[in-house]
Amino acid sequence: MPLIYWLVPFSAAMALSFAFLFFKQMMKKDEGTDMMKRIAEHVRKGASAYLRQQYKIVIIVFVVITIIFSILAYGLGVQNPWVPFAFISGGFFSGLAGFFGMKAATFASARVANACRTSLDSGLRLAFRSGAVMGLVVVGLVLVDISLWFFILNQFIPESMDGYKLMTITAIMLTFGMGASTQALFARVGGGIYTKAADVGADLVGKVEAGIPEDDPRNPATIADNVGDNVGDVAGMGADLFESFAASILAAALLGAAAFIRDGIDIQTNAVLAPMLIASVGTLLSIAGVFMVRTREGATQKQLLKALGVGVNISAFLIVIFSLGILYFLNLPNYLGIWGSIVIGLLAGIGIGQTTEYFTASAFRPTQKIAESSNTGPATVIISGIGTGLISAAIPLAIIVVAITLSYSFATRFDFSVGALNLGLYGIGISAVGMLSTLGITLATDAYGPIADNAGGNAEMCALGKEVRSRTDALDALGNTTAATGKGFAIGSAALTALALLASYFEEVRMMFVKFLDMPQELINNVPAIDAEFIDFVYHYEIHLMNPKVIAGLFIGVMAVFLFSGMTMNAVGRAAQKMVDEVRRQFKTIPGIMEGKAEPDYARCVEISTKGAQKEMMVPSLVALLIPVVIGLIFGVAGITGLLVGTISSGFAMAIFMANAGGAWDNAKKYVEEGHLGGKGSENHKATVIGDTVGDPFKDTSGPSLNILIKLMVMASVVTVGVAVSYSLF
Amino acid sequence: MPLIYWLVPFSAAMALSFAFLFFKQMMKKDEGTDMMKRIAEHVRKGASAYLRQQYKIVIIVFVVITIIFSILAYGLGVQNPWVPFAFISGGFFSGLAGFFGMKAATFASARVANACRTSLDSGLRLAFRSGAVMGLVVVGLVLVDISLWFFILNQFIPESMDGYKLMTITAIMLTFGMGASTQALFARVGGGIYTKAADVGADLVGKVEAGIPEDDPRNPATIADNVGDNVGDVAGMGADLFESFAASILAAALLGAAAFIRDGIDIQTNAVLAPMLIASVGTLLSIAGVFMVRTREGATQKQLLKALGVGVNISAFLIVIFSLGILYFLNLPNYLGIWGSIVIGLLAGIGIGQTTEYFTASAFRPTQKIAESSNTGPATVIISGIGTGLISAAIPLAIIVVAITLSYSFATRFDFSVGALNLGLYGIGISAVGMLSTLGITLATDAYGPIADNAGGNAEMCALGKEVRSRTDALDALGNTTAATGKGFAIGSAALTALALLASYFEEVRMMFVKFLDMPQELINNVPAIDAEFIDFVYHYEIHLMNPKVIAGLFIGVMAVFLFSGMTMNAVGRAAQKMVDEVRRQFKTIPGIMEGKAEPDYARCVEISTKGAQKEMMVPSLVALLIPVVIGLIFGVAGITGLLVGTISSGFAMAIFMANAGGAWDNAKKYVEEGHLGGKGSENHKATVIGDTVGDPFKDTSGPSLNILIKLMVMASVVTVGVAVSYSLF
Repeated sequence: MPLIYWLVPFSAAMALSFAFLFFKQMMKKDEGTDMMKRIAEHVRKGASAYLRQQYKIVIIVFVVITIIFSILAYGLGVQNPWVPFAFISGGFFSGLAGFFGMKAATFASARVANACRTSLDSGLRLAFRSGAVMGLVVVGLVLVDISLWFFILNQFIPESMDGYKLMTITAIMLTFGMGASTQALFARVGGGIYTKAADVGADLVGKVEAGIPEDDPRNPATIADNVGDNVGDVAGMGADLFESFAASILAAALLGAAAFIRDGIDIQTNAVLAPMLIASVGTLLSIAGVFMVRTREGATQKQLLKALGVGVNISAFLIVIFSLGILYFLNLPNYLGIWGSIVIGLLAGIGIGQTTEYFTASAFRPTQKIAESSNTGPATVIISGIGTGLISAAIPLAIIVVAITLSYSFATRFDFSVGALNLGLYGIGISAVGMLSTLGITLATDAYGPIADNAGGNAEMCALGKEVRSRTDALDALGNTTAATGKGFAIGSAALTALALLASYFEEVRMMFVKFLDMPQELINNVPAIDAEFIDFVYHYEIHLMNPKVIAGLFIGVMAVFLFSGMTMNAVGRAAQKMVDEVRRQFKTIPGIMEGKAEPDYARCVEISTKGAQKEMMVPSLVALLIPVVIGLIFGVAGITGLLVGTISSGFAMAIFMANAGGAWDNAKKYVEEGHLGGKGSENHKATVIGDTVGDPFKDTSGPSLNILIKLMVMASVVTVGVAVSYSLF
Repeated sequence: MPLIYWLVPFSAAMALSFAFLFFKQMMKKDEGTDMMKRIAEHVRKGASAYLRQQYKIVIIVFVVITIIFSILAYGLGVQNPWVPFAFISGGFFSGLAGFFGMKAATFASARVANACRTSLDSGLRLAFRSGAVMGLVVVGLVLVDISLWFFILNQFIPESMDGYKLMTITAIMLTFGMGASTQALFARVGGGIYTKAADVGADLVGKVEAGIPEDDPRNPATIADNVGDNVGDVAGMGADLFESFAASILAAALLGAAAFIRDGIDIQTNAVLAPMLIASVGTLLSIAGVFMVRTREGATQKQLLKALGVGVNISAFLIVIFSLGILYFLNLPNYLGIWGSIVIGLLAGIGIGQTTEYFTASAFRPTQKIAESSNTGPATVIISGIGTGLISAAIPLAIIVVAITLSYSFATRFDFSVGALNLGLYGIGISAVGMLSTLGITLATDAYGPIADNAGGNAEMCALGKEVRSRTDALDALGNTTAATGKGFAIGSAALTALALLASYFEEVRMMFVKFLDMPQELINNVPAIDAEFIDFVYHYEIHLMNPKVIAGLFIGVMAVFLFSGMTMNAVGRAAQKMVDEVRRQFKTIPGIMEGKAEPDYARCVEISTKGAQKEMMVPSLVALLIPVVIGLIFGVAGITGLLVGTISSGFAMAIFMANAGGAWDNAKKYVEEGHLGGKGSENHKATVIGDTVGDPFKDTSGPSLNILIKLMVMASVVTVGVAVSYSLF
């Protein structure tokens, strides 16, 4: 093991240590008044109850899948014996990260509200560092898992002359992404349904029917709503990006092993280590970035945003410099080109985030136009939101197109010949790593949002002073902006990661194919022979666009996206309906509830949302898990490749459309509430409230769930590649 | 030319003669009272004004494109010299069909209303036969164009030993589909924007603000609304299916020429003639079917539907029998398998229509659930409509997957080897012909809808007796059902046609490739050599899924769909806004208008809708026309294939989603109006009205426009194939 490898476990340890430090510091702060403590306790209990219930189901699913993988590995021999263990470890670490992140967030909210009683800066810093606990735990645990497995497998997998040792190791490691994917499926889809069922249910009865404000403690669903922010936006987002971070590093490692298979073991090892090292350095830079975030009293919204931006941007700028150093040090061929791919990935992430902001912030024309269409009622608000949302998908799609084309081109020195293919795929893989390299701090910014939101809720419910609430409001508003760009970033990174995974899928199939053919060594070492091998490969598996199996798979991939989005949309509708019924029941049956004399049964609402979410997520989850396996069995590798390409492309577009339309409706409502077009209570306001409610499941359930769908389907295909190769019907 | 060829011009002549006969018979009928005549005259004038304006722009566009094609053909030599002429003829005949169809429809409406004063049966028959004018003119003119060009080119294209004569002829003929596509773009997109701008504008001011009923003569936009039905649903739908009919026949002919290139000129000619003959016989059967449609007084909705169904179903059943006879007579190898492909296509069309009905008719649960969600307000109506619409796309996608897989398999006797590829693609092509074979009568059913709708409008505006209006209402309700299934059929056939076109694209590139290589004859005659040729081909053009150019193209294909849908959605919003302003102005400035004493300025509203539609359609149309050319120039053949596959798959799904969500919202509203959930005027009703308004641009503008997008982008790629092959950047 080269010495530099140890940077990976070192960074992991640093990330976890600082996460622990920030957590300890936060826990030392005071939670404020008794009322504040009580509300926070309710939310904490609700979140824990949800998580417990979710982990119960997750464990069952993991047992089932582990059994299946064991049969594939030990019974049928179409999977590596290490796979079941790698799978479990991915799930375990992802679950752990979610657990710690949510703990930190739920402990932080009252404390942040309380800190706002002192000053804006102390509120911001506390909220942000509590978010950083999540960010650093996620990247730390990913790096722990990766460094551990790399170390272990390096000892156990036998040496081989032809460079296949590293291919095997990275292929096994990739399967722990499957564990993270499965965990993320439950966190993101379940959490997404939970949070919006609670939110929509609370709004429909509380705001609309009973006429009480948001976050009013008399509303029985209000605690569930606050729990939802933690469940969906902290745990869900964390699990989603845990997976992207892990999968992008692992996919790039595998693609590196494949690309440099003929360049000797040293170069090959360095190519495998490169993504891990970039992620490690990015993590160290993220820690440094966290310390740079601070502000002063009375800061404007813009200054607050800049305060957060300083940390993120400096980290991003430094990783550009450092990654060049790493690649130079690793002595990779064409290191400048590979570095270009990394930079492209980083820029693409920033670009997609910026686009999201443009299309969803009320400072820009698109959202203002949606608000203005409220002059002709709610129907035109919806039409205009959908129209703008659809259009808004175009730019991120174009950015991804440019990113994959350029990262491929840079890595191959603009060589599009077949011989350069592997190198190009490595370029795509490492650009995804570039995009995600400073995830530690990016995720801190994301997790900051719901913490600030909950702090605001706590302050509201406990009727804290006006000044305090104006501070929590400022922090909350900032959180809405970071949430929007964060969502764009999450989708963009999911798409690029999924494409990197797709590339690894090809390499895995190729590896099997080469093994089947038992191709002689001299052929492999011979460059024109690569072309021959490649042609044979495409020919053998028919992964070209004239093959009806590819087209069939592609249509089914698009189908999966539409089906999955529709199912999650309807799931929210049904679960919210149950919440509405329960809140109505409590208003009717609990005496004194509307006068604030009796406490509503918060726990019952939490339970209803929890059960609703768990029940409603089963069918869409099965769709996501089974489709790749079934298509693999029917149409084989050709069908799978079509399937994945169809899902990634249309799923990405749909996710952006939904997230942006939802975000724009949300901010169009806020724009009216700020006093434009008649302000609060006007007909225009009512029309935009309807838009906002429609947008809720768009932006917080169906949209983000698609991130998981596109990654999980590739992951499931990668892990069961042996099945599709050996047992397909056609 | 074999004798049986003459069946094609004969069928064309028969179709046009019967269209003329039905037109003459209709014109003999009385138009009713003076008021009825006046209203009909207004609509007729409005429709003509729109058409004139549209043709002006179309002519400019045709001149520009013809110049470009001439440069490509005569200047650069990358296109066949016949192409510009074929292109013009396709546009000319499509325009002619639209003109006659709309003339017939606008002359019929008052006459149908008047016929309803006698009996339900005479109303139904007159409306249906007037619709049949459109149906028969469309199929007749397609067959005229095809038979004419086939005859001419057969004389002029020089004989060649290697079977390339027929490849060349069919490739040239295919380009007249480009003319039809361009014409359809303007008719469908412009017509779609027109009709919904008028409809939404009329509703927002008339129904919502002024509180006057639909089709009230006091509303200045009401004539524009009625014109819109003709412009969008008659002319637009007609141009759309003109193109599908032509393109499916021509694509299948080209695929036949390619598949049987090594089987001798006789078999090859027969394979080329097969789709033309099936379409011809289907046309004759359609004429027979028209005569079978009749009903009796007091018929229920179900009986009326059955009356229409008799004609369509018997024609469909007979074509199954006759096509077997044709294929047997033509002595094609594996004629039973090819027949199977035709049957699959027919069944797929029926299946997609049925699914549409299930998801959009108020007799079934999906629409009822959407209606029920109005209990919690408009937001949940929208959420549930979008959820259900997204899910509803799954089944048609699955049907298409089964259809392409099975039609390929049948035609190749379940042989998936490379040698069978061409045969399989022919199977896909001919299954599209099967789906569209009885278009004459299917289109009559479609065109019947707006005629009945306008007759109802006429009866309403002229305040005809209650009994008459109940008859026109019955005919109108029937029209809504046929419109829904008709939309499903139009989208399904567009998708299958586009896939057939995509297959022809491959064959055209292949033909160029083989010419480039100048492959010796003995190699072509040698079957294993086909495999070598194929591998070379895939290798040379890199049309496999590991190529970033393919993936880039694919993402851009999806992007085009989202961009185009968003643009057309927003176009309706903007154009409707102008209509709202104008109606408000007239209400304010024309004295006596609300008392019915002064006639509103109908013509001004027609003009506003016309101008709005023409202006708003420019950008989306340019997107559709330019993207394939630009992508071809940048990413070459590989990029184009990715582009087309991405557009067809996601465009098909999006079109189904939009059409079904819109249809379901429409019928959810009607379900409430029938007295469910509080009935007319209730809060539930208001909520469903909002859903219906959102659904208007979904189902009548953006959804159907996607049919054109997916076909036009393939067509544009097929026609400019020489450009992508010769001049691509990468």
